[in-house]
Formats: sequence, C-alpha cells, structure tokens
Amino acid sequence: MSRQLHLNAFLMSSGHHEAAWRLPESDPYADVDVDHWIRLARIAERGKLNSLFLADGPVLWQGVEFRPAGQLEPTILLTILATATTHIGLIATASTTYNEPYNLARRFASLDHASGGRAGWNIVTTAGADAARNFGLEDQPDHSDRYQRAEEFVEVSRKLWDSWDDDARQADKATGRYIDPARVHNPEYVGKYYRVAGALNVPRPPQGHPLLVQAGSSEDGKDFAARYADAVFTAHQTLADAQGFYADLKSRAVAAGRDPASVIILPGIVPILAATEAQAQAKAQLLEDLIVPEYGLRQLAAVLEVPQEILKLDEQLPDSIPDSDTIEGAQSRSKLVVALARRERLTVRELIGRLGGGRGHFTFVGTYEQAADVIQEWFENGAADGFNIMGAALPSGLEEFVDHVVPILQERGLFRREYAGRTLREHYGLPRPANQYERVTAGQPGAG
Amino acid sequence: MSRQLHLNAFLMSSGHHEAAWRLPESDPYADVDVDHWIRLARIAERGKLNSLFLADGPVLWQGVEFRPAGQLEPTILLTILATATTHIGLIATASTTYNEPYNLARRFASLDHASGGRAGWNIVTTAGADAARNFGLEDQPDHSDRYQRAEEFVEVSRKLWDSWDDDARQADKATGRYIDPARVHNPEYVGKYYRVAGALNVPRPPQGHPLLVQAGSSEDGKDFAARYADAVFTAHQTLADAQGFYADLKSRAVAAGRDPASVIILPGIVPILAATEAQAQAKAQLLEDLIVPEYGLRQLAAVLEVPQEILKLDEQLPDSIPDSDTIEGAQSRSKLVVALARRERLTVRELIGRLGGGRGHFTFVGTYEQAADVIQEWFENGAADGFNIMGAALPSGLEEFVDHVVPILQERGLFRREYAGRTLREHYGLPRPANQYERVTAGQPGAG
Ligand SMILES: Cc1cc2nc3c(=O)[nH]c(=O)nc-3n(C[C@H](O)[C@H](O)[C@H](O)COP(=O)(O)O)c2cc1C
Ligand SMILES: Cc1cc2nc3c(=O)[nH]c(=O)nc-3n(C[C@H](O)[C@H](O)[C@H](O)COP(=O)(O)O)c2cc1C
Repeated sequence: MSRQLHLNAFLMSSGHHEAAWRLPESDPYADVDVDHWIRLARIAERGKLNSLFLADGPVLWQGVEFRPAGQLEPTILLTILATATTHIGLIATASTTYNEPYNLARRFASLDHASGGRAGWNIVTTAGADAARNFGLEDQPDHSDRYQRAEEFVEVSRKLWDSWDDDARQADKATGRYIDPARVHNPEYVGKYYRVAGALNVPRPPQGHPLLVQAGSSEDGKDFAARYADAVFTAHQTLADAQGFYADLKSRAVAAGRDPASVIILPGIVPILAATEAQAQAKAQLLEDLIVPEYGLRQLAAVLEVPQEILKLDEQLPDSIPDSDTIEGAQSRSKLVVALARRERLTVRELIGRLGGGRGHFTFVGTYEQAADVIQEWFENGAADGFNIMGAALPSGLEEFVDHVVPILQERGLFRREYAGRTLREHYGLPRPANQYERVTAGQPGAG
Repeated sequence: MSRQLHLNAFLMSSGHHEAAWRLPESDPYADVDVDHWIRLARIAERGKLNSLFLADGPVLWQGVEFRPAGQLEPTILLTILATATTHIGLIATASTTYNEPYNLARRFASLDHASGGRAGWNIVTTAGADAARNFGLEDQPDHSDRYQRAEEFVEVSRKLWDSWDDDARQADKATGRYIDPARVHNPEYVGKYYRVAGALNVPRPPQGHPLLVQAGSSEDGKDFAARYADAVFTAHQTLADAQGFYADLKSRAVAAGRDPASVIILPGIVPILAATEAQAQAKAQLLEDLIVPEYGLRQLAAVLEVPQEILKLDEQLPDSIPDSDTIEGAQSRSKLVVALARRERLTVRELIGRLGGGRGHFTFVGTYEQAADVIQEWFENGAADGFNIMGAALPSGLEEFVDHVVPILQERGLFRREYAGRTLREHYGLPRPANQYERVTAGQPGAG
C-alpha cells in the first residue's frame, strides 16, 4: 500500500476560531457539555480519523471574558470519549512541569487499559508564569530547565510503563502465586528533578507505551521530539516553512538513531470550507467580523511577551518586538507570528484577524477539493505526514471535513476507508515498543 | 420519612477477601477489566446504593506476588462507571500528600461535570515510605505534617471549586462578552505547604463541591473529619467500639460548629452470607483455607510496622509490639488489630485469618436476615448512619447483598426503593454548599 496520510482531530469546544461561540448555531456552553464532545468524537470516528486530541494547560485562560474557558481535565474527558467510540485514538495533553511522573504515567496507563490501547500523551512543558503561580512558584522554570525536566519525566515514565513484564502475571489459583516478582521491576530512577523508586501499580499498557506526541518547535523542543516523539504537532503558515521544519526534524531523528519514518509530523490546518470559494470566503468573513479586538490584542501581547500598550491596532508591529530566542515561553509560536506579520506587512488588526482562526496555524479558506489538494501537496512534498484538523467552528467544521474532504482523500487512495487495527499505534503504523527490562532480565529472578 | 440508611459499595477487583481471586468462579484479571467494574457498578445501582467507592494509593502493593495488584487510577475508572450508570455516586480516593491541589481539584470538578454531579473524594494522607519513595522522598512526611497538608489542600480546593460563581457565564453572543470577570475569583492562597494563585479553569461543579469523604481514625484524622468530611469511612470489630467512635466524631463535629447529622458515619462490613448459617460458615471456611500465610504475615508486619521475623504463626503477638501512637502510618488500623488479637487471644495465624476478609473491617458470617438485623442494630443504636458494603468475593458478594439483604432493609422502611435525587449529595441528604465568594463579592467588580 502506498504511504498513507494521518489525520488527527484537534478538538476545541465550540471551535478553534476564537469567535466561533458567537455564531448563531453554536452552543456557548459546549465546553463542559459531555454530549457535545461525544458528538465530535463520533463524527471523527465516522471519518476514520486516527485520533482525537485535546490541548491543555493547568490555568484559566487570560481571555476568559471573551470566549469559553472551561476545560474539563483531558484524561477524564477522553475516558468518556473512549466509552462512546470503538477505534479512534485519544490524545491528551499533560504537562511535565506540573505533574508527578508516577501519577501521570499511571493515568495514561489506566486510560490505555480502559480504552483497549487507544491512549496518547501530548507532552508539553507549559509556558507562562500564570500556570507556575498555580503550583507554588513565582515564575515558570526557564525554557531549557523545563525541557530537561521533560526528558527525565519521559525516561521515568517509560520505566514505569515497562515495570511489569507483559507476562508478569501467572495468577496460579492452585498455589496462590499471583505474580512472579522477578517479572516486576522497580525503576529506582534517580535524576536531577525526579526520583521514583517503585514499580507502577498498573500492568503494562496494551500499547506498551501510550503514543508519545510532542508539540514544541523551539530548538530544545525539536531535539526532544527527535528523541522521544512518535508524532509531532506543529504550526506553519507556508509550504516552505513546513518543508524546512519537516526536513530538520527528520534529520534530527536520524541523528538520534531513529528511523525518520517513525516520527510522524502533523502540521495544523484550520479548514474554512464550502462548495464554492465565494461561500467559503463569506464564512471566513463572518467569523472575522465577530472577533473582539480587545481580546486579540491581549492574546497577541501574551504570545509576544510584550506590554499590550505598545501594540497599535492600525499600525504594524513595532520594531522593538524582541527576537524570539529571548522568550522563555512559547518560542516557536512567537517567531511564527512575527514572521507572518513582517512578511505580509500586516497591521496589528489584520494580524489578529489572521490569528483568530487558529492562533498561528495555517488557515485554509476554499472548496473541499482545494483543501484536499493542499493536503496532498504538503503530504507529497516533504512538508507533512498528515494533519491536525482544526475545525474553526464545531461540530460543523469537523463534519464538513469528514463528509466532504475525507471521501476525496479516500478516492485518491491517500486515506483509509476502514480502520485496519485497534490501537492508536496501529492507526499510525507504529510498532508496540519492546520492554526495556524484558530482554536483560528474563529468567533472572530478583533482577531489576 | 424516618431516618434512612446510607449504603456505599466499597469495590475491590475480585473481592475484599485476599484469597477471593483463587475461587474457581473468580476472574483473576478482573482488576484491569473494565467490563468487570461495569458489572459491579450496575449491580450496586440496581440495589439503589448511594455510591461506589474505590480505595487507592500511588504505590504497588507489597503483596503483589499473592493477589491482584493492578489498580486503574480511580478517577479514570469511575469516569468509565459514570457512563455505565445514571444515578449512583462515584467516590475516588486521592492523596493530599502526593498531588497538587490545582490538578486534583480540577479532576474532581471534571468528574462532577461529566457525571452530572455524582463525584466524591475520599481524602487520604497516604501512609508509608514506599509511596513516599515514588515521589522523590526518602520517607513519608510525619503523621501530623500530613494532616496539616491535607487541611491546606482541602481549603484551597474549596476555593478553587468556588472560583467561578454559579452564574459567572453570561455568554452574550451579541457583545462578545462571555464572562463577567468580577464573577471569577482568584484564590490567591498562600499556605505553609501550598500556594495557588489563580482560578480553576472549570466552572463550579454541579454539586458545588464533590462529596468529601475521610477515612482516617487517628486523633488527627477524626479532627480533620469533624471539620471537613461529609462522610466518614471507618472500621470497627464490635458494636461498642463503633458506638464510641460514632459519639466521639459527632461531638467533635458539634465542637467544630457543624450539625452532627451532616457528618455521615459509615463503618465497613464484609458480609459472608447464605440462606443458612451453615452454608455461610462453609463459604467463610472456603475462603480462609485459601489464604497464603506468608502473605498474611507480611501484611500484618506492615500494618504493625514491625519486622516480620518477630511474628510467629502459632504464637500470640509479642508483647513488644509498639503502642499505636508511636506509629507514623495508619494509627487507627494498627490499634484495632492489636486490640482484636489481645482481646480474643488469637495466634498470629488466627489473626491473619480474621483479617483476611477485610483487613480489619467487621466480617459478618450469617444469613441474609441476620445481616439485616446487625445493620439495623448498629444503625439504631448510635453506631452507624449506614455501611460500607465490602463484598468478600466479587461480583457474588455484592450481588447477594443487593438481591437478598437490600429487599429486607427496604421492607423494614430503612432504605430507599428508588433514588429520590440525581446527585451524590442528594443521595446522602446533604445540601449543595454555598459559594464562599458569592455573598461577599456579589456586584463588586474586580473583587476576589
Ligand atoms: C498543535 C499544537 C498544540 C499544542 N498544544 C499545547 C497544549 O495543549 N498545551 C501547552 O502547554 N502547549 C501546547 N502547545 C505548545 C507547545 O507544547 C509548546 O509549549 C510551545 O510551542 C512552546 O514550546 P517551544 O518553546 O518548544 O516552541 C501546542 C503546540 C502546537 C503546535
Ligand atoms: C474504609 C477505609 C478506606 C480507606 N481507604 C484508604 C485508601 O484508599 N487509601 C489510603 O491511603 N488510606 C485509606 N484508608 C486509610 C486512612 O485513610 C488512613 O490513611 C489510615 O486510617 C491512617 O490514618 P489515621 O492515622 O488517621 O488512622 C482507608 C481507611 C478506611 C477505614
């Protein structure tokens, strides 16, 4: 079979467009309405998409005045969605800066068991002082510190997932011997940030490890992804930028000793689609007209880490905007935003309009056929292994994609018509990882 | 209506009896089998029980060789059970020593939203060095330190649950104003152990606060329960002990300024039942014969915090066993065990047999009618407001109770025939807590 596209449904309550909740058809309370999320999950599964994805941060959005800000904790919400679906993968974001490895590794192992092997973890380091202040800190740990912590977190999590051999349990009713203790391994991990002595209290997950996803595009972020990620979420405005990122990340994966095909790169796309271009443009305009500039300004100032006062709605970005490498938070996002503004000489107001749909993700306005063309172009020209599908308004944006674009991609032989496997790793064509303890200690009682 | 019994189903994979997994009918892999748990939940709901309860600790049981030790993380498992039921409450244990308030308060708020107001939190401080070593510590924080931490944890959690007024959201599509920021309150909590600045990113839960349960019976534990708990789990071997505890805790509640009826006391009972006494005795014997003494010894040594070598199977407990007040872990449990052994002059082997069913909980062997009598006796004589029903083997132990004992209790007018309310608080006859911010700050923009 030819190389296949991977499609992930990046869900966000009433939609990725910041003003989507103001559309007449939108339910502004969808954010905590389980039935809304179940509807989205079933649409995505009907489209045979690889997975659902929920972004997350342990903090109330600054823009709570201007858009739905309720965020049910993603592993809980995805557990609900697991029971409402049978095949689609379930990817939850969780922070390595504000969790404990034992608890989090266990939660993902539990979700993987409960869903029959459909769990994925979007590993993020969580930018921002606001989040830090919810966890007893004055400010966020610095960028490289956060990534070192993330590395340790993933190392120890993999040991925890591997702490039971796959066949650790004999459950011998006759003798009363439940487990061979030689097949349970204590990580005894001692790092700079984390120390975890004992084995997990959950058997090895069906997938071995949940799918590991990464979404930071700074230098540290890319190195981390090259070493640990099965899939990478990213944001690009142009084919050229996406190609550059793709080539860069694949070569880093090779340098880290990995098969580049085993690191799946998924840029985001916000499709605003209709049967004709004119209709699609009208839809996009409708959404843009609903943007509250005050909110856009605030968000932009936060991404750029500048005082809001220096941004003037009808002027271009000031030259004083700092170079992104000095930014402690989301380095790649601010770089992208500044580049977009400068490349197209956008006023702040125009920039806010461009970012409203997907906060820096590629917004595509056009017909279903044109969307399929762009996806195919990026996929076949070294820019993407698939896409993060980010409905501008939900459920409509996902429904249109599934009903009108997916069939075209299937017709072209680029995308599955049925799920071939049951697990999330299978949907992405990735093997089940070997257990790091199993080979070394097999048959050596007491080892590990 | 006369005072009503409260019944909580304390679930544990193949049953509370440590050897239950060895019964021919038991599935030894039930611990991580979601369908098994769904079956249990539906039996309990068929019996109109108030709630399901899962114990928990972030550590692999020492006795992993001898009994099922997989423990899916309880908020995940209860989320599954929420989708498989409509009314029954869902009580998850979580540790105040090894979690962050922002994350945990959010998880319970999410479960409460996802279940339509059925979430409860069994607040534990987590005894033991093994757990501590999974979180970067050499040993557990000392007992009183853990309880001080628990107090702060609950204080800040209540602020987080209250951080959105119930009517915080206006979602005004016309103006684009989603929330009135004056109705969202930042805890700005600064304690000795925790500092949490910002509001939760989840609207106030349907129940206001999840039901708060407490299960420690030391002096610190009882004071904590008297101040914070809506319900208290406890373990007693005799009516007299249970009465003493009941009177003590209710008077502490009064001293803390609370209505004693608002603190619901639930001792555990392990019912081993049949149509005749002889059949029930045979069932109990069957289970006792399956106990592995090596496991019982190890557990006993752990509870008593003594070296295993000083315990001799066919002798009584040595006089050197320390007085329980010197124990940093589970004070009340070790006190109970020592008292039981000394009162009945049990050998260690006999003691292990007595503890096998419910680790110190009251094991009742008899007919269905006799079980109903005992429950009624404790309920009407100042020993209990209801019970924690702990099936020795599962699902059979719960099924028998629901099919044979519940109807007797209903017949006697002691227990509901139908759920009257929808939320867990309603099942326990408890009001929805007021929001601590709402009265003070109503109409004062920017306050809180
Ligand atoms: C598609 C996508 C989704 C993301 N989701 C989250 C998220 O849910 N939570 C979060 O804290 N960061 C999220 N990020 C941001 C990154 O994880 C990362 O924090 C950010 O890009 C800054 O990291 P960097 O400095 O490596 O670029 C996301 C990024 C992308 C491209
Ligand atoms: C019915 C019941 C259930 C309990 N469940 C747990 C539990 O799930 N996790 C836990 O760490 N402790 C649990 N405990 C123990 C108590 O929370 C507490 O840690 C223990 O009794 C020691 O505290 P103390 O010193 O206040 O007695 C339970 C106790 C009882 C009576």
